[in-house]
Formats: sequence, structure tokens, C-alpha cells
Amino acid sequence: MDIKIAIDAMGGDFGPKITVPAAIIALQRHPNLKLILVGKRETLQTQLANCFRACCSCGLNNRVGDQIEICDTTEEVAMDESPVKALRFKKDSSMRVTINLVKDGKAQAGVSAGNTGALMAIAHYVLKTLPGVDRPAIITSLPTVNPNKEVHVLDLGANVDSEAMHLYQFAVMGSVLVKATTSTDNPKIGLLNIGSEEIKGNEQVKKAMQLIVKNRALNYVGYVEGDDIFKGDVDVVVCDGFIGNVTLKTVEGIAKLFDTYLRRYFTQNFFTKTIAILATPILKKLACQLDPGRRNGASLIGLRGIVVKSHGGANEVAFANAIEEAIREVEHNVPQNIQTEVRQLLSDETS
Amino acid sequence: MDIKIAIDAMGGDFGPKITVPAAIIALQRHPNLKLILVGKRETLQTQLANCFRACCSCGLNNRVGDQIEICDTTEEVAMDESPVKALRFKKDSSMRVTINLVKDGKAQAGVSAGNTGALMAIAHYVLKTLPGVDRPAIITSLPTVNPNKEVHVLDLGANVDSEAMHLYQFAVMGSVLVKATTSTDNPKIGLLNIGSEEIKGNEQVKKAMQLIVKNRALNYVGYVEGDDIFKGDVDVVVCDGFIGNVTLKTVEGIAKLFDTYLRRYFTQNFFTKTIAILATPILKKLACQLDPGRRNGASLIGLRGIVVKSHGGANEVAFANAIEEAIREVEHNVPQNIQTEVRQLLSDETS
Repeated sequence: MDIKIAIDAMGGDFGPKITVPAAIIALQRHPNLKLILVGKRETLQTQLANCFRACCSCGLNNRVGDQIEICDTTEEVAMDESPVKALRFKKDSSMRVTINLVKDGKAQAGVSAGNTGALMAIAHYVLKTLPGVDRPAIITSLPTVNPNKEVHVLDLGANVDSEAMHLYQFAVMGSVLVKATTSTDNPKIGLLNIGSEEIKGNEQVKKAMQLIVKNRALNYVGYVEGDDIFKGDVDVVVCDGFIGNVTLKTVEGIAKLFDTYLRRYFTQNFFTKTIAILATPILKKLACQLDPGRRNGASLIGLRGIVVKSHGGANEVAFANAIEEAIREVEHNVPQNIQTEVRQLLSDETS
Repeated sequence: MDIKIAIDAMGGDFGPKITVPAAIIALQRHPNLKLILVGKRETLQTQLANCFRACCSCGLNNRVGDQIEICDTTEEVAMDESPVKALRFKKDSSMRVTINLVKDGKAQAGVSAGNTGALMAIAHYVLKTLPGVDRPAIITSLPTVNPNKEVHVLDLGANVDSEAMHLYQFAVMGSVLVKATTSTDNPKIGLLNIGSEEIKGNEQVKKAMQLIVKNRALNYVGYVEGDDIFKGDVDVVVCDGFIGNVTLKTVEGIAKLFDTYLRRYFTQNFFTKTIAILATPILKKLACQLDPGRRNGASLIGLRGIVVKSHGGANEVAFANAIEEAIREVEHNVPQNIQTEVRQLLSDETS
């Protein structure tokens, strides 16, 4: 089955310099993939020509050229642009057109490394939420101490002041996504809190717990604390978007802190530099295991279409991984699965 | 000037096995320090005798014996005990008596590694908040990319659903504590949020920002995100206790994750083990710089007395560092400073 994905080729900190080579990586991996690169035609053609020239000996041009089309646009959404402005006034932006292509069924998914707020605002406005879903959410995976297991966390910032019902819907959506896109049959769900005892937490969390527990289809395992996220004991961690966003950014901040000190201490003198050379394979393995780029690709779920957000500063390999996430969600028909599950829950509640 | 501190010697994951040796470390460092070890007399005497015997050749017994007294108690607060139960029914617990000693002026500060919820409940009930302070908060320091600079974060879990006025008071208290106990003259204050733009965040944060900005005595620098905490650009990060607690635990979780993978990759085979031996001084330096124990000692501020909470799993050096924090706060008269500052703010507001 062919898969067609629209790429916001102008988005992210580096635009086409990253998105175009990433698109080629994805096309090389998937012969059944077709990509629509959305952006300024001239810029994209130049970038494509550069990529093909760099790889002229391998016949890349002929092999993947047919899998690419360009959708010409005149505008771009800046990384610091207000979501409201982007939504109202940039109707021919590469981001907006990418989402329009998903809405019109011309692409099965959209991928962007652009401004998260603008992407969520546009995707929410254009695609709308699935019936029964009040609010879309952002979900991504993080590493755990078990190298073969990742944990998915949502919401990562689409919503602040989530009510109990929203947290409950996040649990349902997270469970469906993990079931569909990983080999986990019955994902274990934890609710992020400041203690594991039932009396802990704020009102929303306590009420959400009661809603989640009532639904026997969900494999709820209890409250989890910040440090439990990484223990590999749960598959889905549910929280309000404010907390999820701070948590995700804290993880990024701490990762940079470790990296800074490792580099500083390993480059202090001739002796430490020599050890650094010897330790390079180990440190690379560590970086690879914990690298956010390896699991780049946060999904905007709960919408009537698949939208994947890449990290703004992603390199080509990381952006290609975001395209992979979109492919997985297309292959497993995630929005349809969420809709079925939510409809089932709603009929259970009313019966 | 003599300083007298009460130690909840039964608290923490390891009780007297850690608190007693830690007390001796603190006494060796500070000849003007006197400690009241609160707990079961017999257990504490045995533990003290063991410590003195282990160090009989250095005359430790004579040197620090006079600086210690024991306050006998019959009960203990378990690490998983409900704060309400601990407060209501354990009136002769080592934790309660430690706080009573502070209230009665028999000790200038109390230190405990026990159950945080119970400690906060007891300290709040017994000591009460300072005039003008609505809620006490928990504050601790975290490392930044600048090895000479730490960042203080509050609240770490004393409060959930903090209102704007509470966040504002946390900013005032955090600023006073950092000014008093570090060499920072005019601490830079950041408000934790999910973006740096003014429109970002929930209602509490936006309102708190307006209150903080109005107070020109506070050096407010703007919203900060999760990853900004560790950049060394701000001295105090203010947030609701739910978010602060999740952030702190996330930091601990990620630190453990790195440690797990470092150990795993460095012990894979003979070659990696050899490199690990060579890299030990560097890795130790890294661990020391980022070790939570090095900056062990979270303060319960906003109360009419000094209470420092050690990590439950702290070793003797880490617990001794929590005692150091208490000494610093006594020396700089932190509650008095907070009271003066809050009174000033209240009179400014009413004038």
C-alpha cells in the first residue's frame, strides 16, 4: 500500500536544509512512500538538486525522484510567531498548506518541525477533533532504564488547566496510540502525581483517577511520580499539558547539563582527552540511547488526521525519524482506532 | 555565637545509622555547634558509642561528646505514614519533638530526613506561618551549567493549586533565602512556564507575573521554561508545588537513568571496564558536581522557625550537608529576614 505524507519543508530552525535530506532518507527506506514537500518551489528544487548532485553516483535521482512532488507556497510561519497570527493571517504558509493537504485527503499525514503552538492551533482549527474528544494532546516517547522499552507521555503542552475528563481522554488516546504503534498489547497507564498514595495530588488528578479506574478496558496501574517515568514500569504517563511540557523541557535541560559537564571534564587536559578518545564508543552509545532525536516525533493526537511534530532543532536523521512516526501511525490507522475506542467508551457510559 | 540544632535522629530510610555519624561530621566542622539528637535514647547511645569506638584513636569522644545531648522519645513517624495520622496521633515522635524544640526556642533549627508530608504538616501546625505568609513552601537548590552557580527552586510540593498570591509570596521568600544564604546580592527570579512569551501559561502564572513585576524590590527576569532552570541565568525559579515536585523527581529520575546507562556501558566487557578505571576520576567529578546529596537539604520556608528536610535516602555526608544548610539559615536569620521583607511589601501595598 502506498503511503503519502505532506512535509512542511520550510519549518524548523533550519528549514529545507534539513527537511529535504530527511525526506530523501525516508524515501530510501520506504519504496512505497510518496512525499509532498510543501514550501517555496525554487528553494526546494535547489535543495533537492544539491542532494541529488551530492549523491549522483548512486542513481538516487532516478530512484526517489518519482516519489517526490512539490506543493508551492508563498509564506512561512516563524518559529516565534504567535499561533493566533499564524492561524489568521498566514493562509498560504507551508505549515497551513501541509495541514490542508491532510484535511483534503491528499496526504495521509503531515509532518512539521515548525512552531508547536502554531501547528497545534492550525491543526486543531483545520482538522477538528475526533467525535467525543474534547481536546487534542501532544504525545512523545522518552527513554527508560530498560533499553528495549520506551514510555509515552501526554499531554506535553497542548492544554493547560486540563480537567479530569480531559486527563481521562488522554489516557484513552495514549493507550490506543501505544497499542497501535508499538508491540505493547495492553499498555500500562500511570497518572502523574506528587505521591503514590490515593490522597495525594490536586482535585483534577484525583477525579481523573476515578474515571480511569472505572474503565476496565484501560490497564491503569496507579499514580506515578516524576522519577517513575523512567523506570520502565509504565507505558503511558498521563498529565496536564503544563506539567508535561515542564517535564519534557526539564529532561532536555538535564540532558544538556550532563553533556556540558561530560565534555568539560573530558577535555580538561591531555590525559582526560586521551581517555575521551578511548571512551568515545561508549559515550556515543550512551548519547544514542538517550538522544531525543532517536525518538524525535511528537504526535498531535485526538484530531481527524495524523500530524507529527519534529523537534525544531532536529537534524536530518531525527527529522526522518519523525516521518517514520507518521508512517507508523498511517499504517496502524491511529485516528480511526482512537475514534472507535472513544465511541465505545461513550456508548458504555450512556448504556 | 553558639548554634543549637535539633536532629530528628530516627527519620529517613536509615535512621540513626546515618543521622548519628552525620551529626558527628557536622560537630567536627563547627566547634560552636551543639546538637540535640531526638529519638530512642538507648538506640542513639549505642550508635554514638559505635561511632566513638570506630574513632577512639582520634579522641573524638572527648572533643564532640560535650556538644551532643539526647532527647528521648518513644515514637517514630514511618516514611509512608499519612501526614494526618502522624500529626494527630504521634505526639511523642522524634519528628514532632524536634519541631517542638524549635518552637520552644530550645533549638534554633530542626533537621529531619523523615516523611516530607508529615514533616510539613507538623512544622506548619506547630510553628505556624510568618505573619503575612499564607502558605509555607519547600525550596532546594539544583546544579546549573555554571559550576559556581546553583539555582533555587520553590515550591517543591508543600502546596498544590497555588494561587497567584502564593506564587508571589514564594518569589519573595525565595529571593530572601538566596540573598541571605548565598553570595547573590540581587537574586534573579524566573517564573516557571511553558513558554517565554507573555501570553503563555495558565491564569495563576499570568496573574503571579503581574504581582511580581509590580514589586520593584524583586529582580524578576521573566518566564523560564523547564530547560532554562539549568542554564545558570536565574537564581530563583518559582512554581506551584505540584509542578516543582514533578520537576525535582524528574531530575532525580533522569540522573538515575544516566547513571544506569553509564554503568551498563562501562561494564560490558574487559575493554570497557579498563576504560572505566581510567575514566573513574572524571566520572567521580561528574557525579560529585551533579550529586543531589552535595546540595542535600530542602528548606521549609515561610514558617516561624527553621526546618530543613534531608533526602530520605541520604548518606551521612549528605545528611551533614542538610545540617550545614540549617546552620547557614540560623546564621543569616532567614525567618526574620522573610518576615521583614513580607511586612515591608504588605505596608507598600496598603500605603
